[in-house]
Amino acid sequence: MARFCLSSHFLTALCAGLIFASSVGASSLAVYGGNQAKYVFLFVGDGLGMPQRAAATEYLKDSGLERRLVMESMPVHGVTTTQAADRFITGSAAAGTAMATGVKTNIGCIGVDANLRSVTTLAEKAKREGIKVGIISSVSIDHATPAAFYAHQPSRSMYHEIDHELAESEIDFFGGGGFKDPEGIKSKAPLGDAVEAAKTNGFTVVDSRRGIMGLKKGSGKVIAVNPRLPDGKAMPYDMDRDTNDVSLSEFTGKAVELLDGEQGFFIMVEGGKIDWACHANDAAAAIKDTLAFDDAVSVAVDFAKEHPDDTLVVVTGDHECGGLALGFSGTKYATSYSLMNNQTKSHQAFLDDIFATYLKKKGRFKGAMKLVETHFGLSTDAEGSLKLKPYEVDELKRAYKSSLKGETLKPGMADYMLYGSYDPFTMQLTHMLNRKAGLGWTTYSHTGVPVLTSAFGTGATLFSGYYDNTDIAKKISHIMNL
Amino acid sequence: MARFCLSSHFLTALCAGLIFASSVGASSLAVYGGNQAKYVFLFVGDGLGMPQRAAATEYLKDSGLERRLVMESMPVHGVTTTQAADRFITGSAAAGTAMATGVKTNIGCIGVDANLRSVTTLAEKAKREGIKVGIISSVSIDHATPAAFYAHQPSRSMYHEIDHELAESEIDFFGGGGFKDPEGIKSKAPLGDAVEAAKTNGFTVVDSRRGIMGLKKGSGKVIAVNPRLPDGKAMPYDMDRDTNDVSLSEFTGKAVELLDGEQGFFIMVEGGKIDWACHANDAAAAIKDTLAFDDAVSVAVDFAKEHPDDTLVVVTGDHECGGLALGFSGTKYATSYSLMNNQTKSHQAFLDDIFATYLKKKGRFKGAMKLVETHFGLSTDAEGSLKLKPYEVDELKRAYKSSLKGETLKPGMADYMLYGSYDPFTMQLTHMLNRKAGLGWTTYSHTGVPVLTSAFGTGATLFSGYYDNTDIAKKISHIMNL
Repeated sequence: MARFCLSSHFLTALCAGLIFASSVGASSLAVYGGNQAKYVFLFVGDGLGMPQRAAATEYLKDSGLERRLVMESMPVHGVTTTQAADRFITGSAAAGTAMATGVKTNIGCIGVDANLRSVTTLAEKAKREGIKVGIISSVSIDHATPAAFYAHQPSRSMYHEIDHELAESEIDFFGGGGFKDPEGIKSKAPLGDAVEAAKTNGFTVVDSRRGIMGLKKGSGKVIAVNPRLPDGKAMPYDMDRDTNDVSLSEFTGKAVELLDGEQGFFIMVEGGKIDWACHANDAAAAIKDTLAFDDAVSVAVDFAKEHPDDTLVVVTGDHECGGLALGFSGTKYATSYSLMNNQTKSHQAFLDDIFATYLKKKGRFKGAMKLVETHFGLSTDAEGSLKLKPYEVDELKRAYKSSLKGETLKPGMADYMLYGSYDPFTMQLTHMLNRKAGLGWTTYSHTGVPVLTSAFGTGATLFSGYYDNTDIAKKISHIMNL
Repeated sequence: MARFCLSSHFLTALCAGLIFASSVGASSLAVYGGNQAKYVFLFVGDGLGMPQRAAATEYLKDSGLERRLVMESMPVHGVTTTQAADRFITGSAAAGTAMATGVKTNIGCIGVDANLRSVTTLAEKAKREGIKVGIISSVSIDHATPAAFYAHQPSRSMYHEIDHELAESEIDFFGGGGFKDPEGIKSKAPLGDAVEAAKTNGFTVVDSRRGIMGLKKGSGKVIAVNPRLPDGKAMPYDMDRDTNDVSLSEFTGKAVELLDGEQGFFIMVEGGKIDWACHANDAAAAIKDTLAFDDAVSVAVDFAKEHPDDTLVVVTGDHECGGLALGFSGTKYATSYSLMNNQTKSHQAFLDDIFATYLKKKGRFKGAMKLVETHFGLSTDAEGSLKLKPYEVDELKRAYKSSLKGETLKPGMADYMLYGSYDPFTMQLTHMLNRKAGLGWTTYSHTGVPVLTSAFGTGATLFSGYYDNTDIAKKISHIMNL
């Protein structure tokens, strides 16, 4: 549990900050008369809207776990709008660029404005001032959110070019997932092996748990990659993490250990797989990844408590994902989020490690139902709400047939609303368990509802109020005097 | 547009207030050293979660309307949890009691704690201090939210008993909807005509627009009832309002006019039909009622600007309703909320005034589709996304057949998830228009996501942070020195 000790400095900053927060518009930042922050953490939960935070909170309560989310315990909370320059519902590239640079841009753009002009990021400004910088993500380190802090490309899918920008950067610490296209297989004009280029540019590349946990201060620039990258060069969902993996909080702790010093630091940590779980409407995986993200926040808050006069911790989301609602028509006013403890693996691990093999053998539906019982707790013989009703078995049969067919569903097709472009049987299972728990989803995409931003420490009060995601960069920039 | 002029008093209160807001727990209220507020407004949007507010905001933008919600323009915003003592997803009675008394209670309870012991409300405390009190609601004035401020009953459905508590109260102004059971038709032990009892107790009862708008200071205790009460003794949805009706902002303005004076006032205004619209998954009606609610907030903010040293305006919701999401699977990342301008009437008025008659005649589907075109803009000949695809016509046919059957659907029945307990054809229409606009719903009930609370004026900073709905009563009580 986080406890908050308020220094008198903090209180002064608090008042000065709130005077700003009470006026409207970022121009009033000049009114802020509080301390500068030497150590700044920006946590971005990808797909982390208020529903995701609240579902995790209620899941903990319903499971009888004595834990309150650290981000929910913070003293200051604001509401952050997320729209892109060219679309109401944003994406991670435009939202990441907004938070990294303070500039609104179009969907898909990385570190460039809506006219594709390169814009300087917080990380780059920090480096110019001699401040250490760490970039961590649970998805590939060249994915839209982390890339928005160090790369400048008209399209987020230019992974190879982004990989080379990473390699050529002066960022001190990269941690989490791997590279999506280091060799330029998908590039029209390959630039050579980006990993080799990174090494040439002074980076040490480590990809074992032992190697990562053994890193010491003075290691120089580091690229620390989790040993297992099961899907899309991302770290596993936290509910699938094993003893060889490095958790998001361990990556965060290691970054703090390596970057801590008189020169200060800026560390961005992305909980990237919250979004992936929500795209797939997998509430159990989304909740567990939100908890893992909160564990990483806890590392930062612990550091802030040791450095109370000059540390700022900001936690936000880039957008909501999935249209998650904490209520479902079939269950009306009832909820039981602890039912999700019956799910043993994420939808992805269930599909990759268990169901794909069975499907390949074209196994019978009856056998598939055994897997369902083992990995989701659902069966016709189960007790209480885990018991499958005849119409639910029919729904699973229909989905199973669709999985056997193996076609990829697209918007406009009748079954797209049921399963999105995911494996139908797996999707039906997560939907079914989620609904029994009392959770509903409306989409496989992002949504436009504003997100919550929470803050703790020096300058935290600047994050009170109702503001845009571009203001996050402006506020941090101001507090760091960049 | 609201503009904010900050007095130096306000800034002092702001700082003092934020020091509280930054510590955790209501016990720190004692730290608040700002002004007392003499004039306090509490606006409760029933069913008003963050999605409802954001949908209204984006609807305005998408419709090219130059207006920002006044509540969104306020300087302070907090996150408010809503759970009842005995259930995660709350109801209006438990939530209303929490906000009116500071005490958590069970679902359905009005002004009593979880052991059914009567608890004193803010309104009652204010009266004891000689402060004027006004209670306004767009639904019946004995509905759960308003009742929680003046009545004490184990069940919200004891309307007759609640009506008599209203009649016997010393509240100065009641405005909005009517009485649900003044004569005790549904009561086992009728207490006589509550309206007559109110008159005997000194209330003037007015139910014409002319009568209400003509009320002058010194009229004594008033019960002002909108002339038209089309459903459940509630005011019409704002999109169905006509020139004989009194709007929610007019009721608010009248309360201010009558109650303004040296003794101060506490005015509670409920936007009750936002909730009803969301139960019915009618986004157009929900958005228009949210705008009407915001108009009422604007009246309060204007008053606060004239009395900047001692006025507090708080805007909150009692819970989210419908699981509204600003994105839908079928439309993916696209939204077009202005499509809802094609809906001419609320679902209720369409059903009551138009469709019920047609249905009674057992008219042909083809004729029903003419009504659809006129009142929702949807047809097979329409342009763009209003054009109905063959599968959508099939969905409407299915719903029309179900409407013809006339059975009331219940949870557990296959079609309940499609239509809830509403008229199937009308529900299919609002769902269809909402989805084309890029809005999804997950339930016909409330949900458990926290709501936003916004505040302006004296003591506003106390409403920053992350707190429970019971804290709203505690904060207001403190600021009013009750």
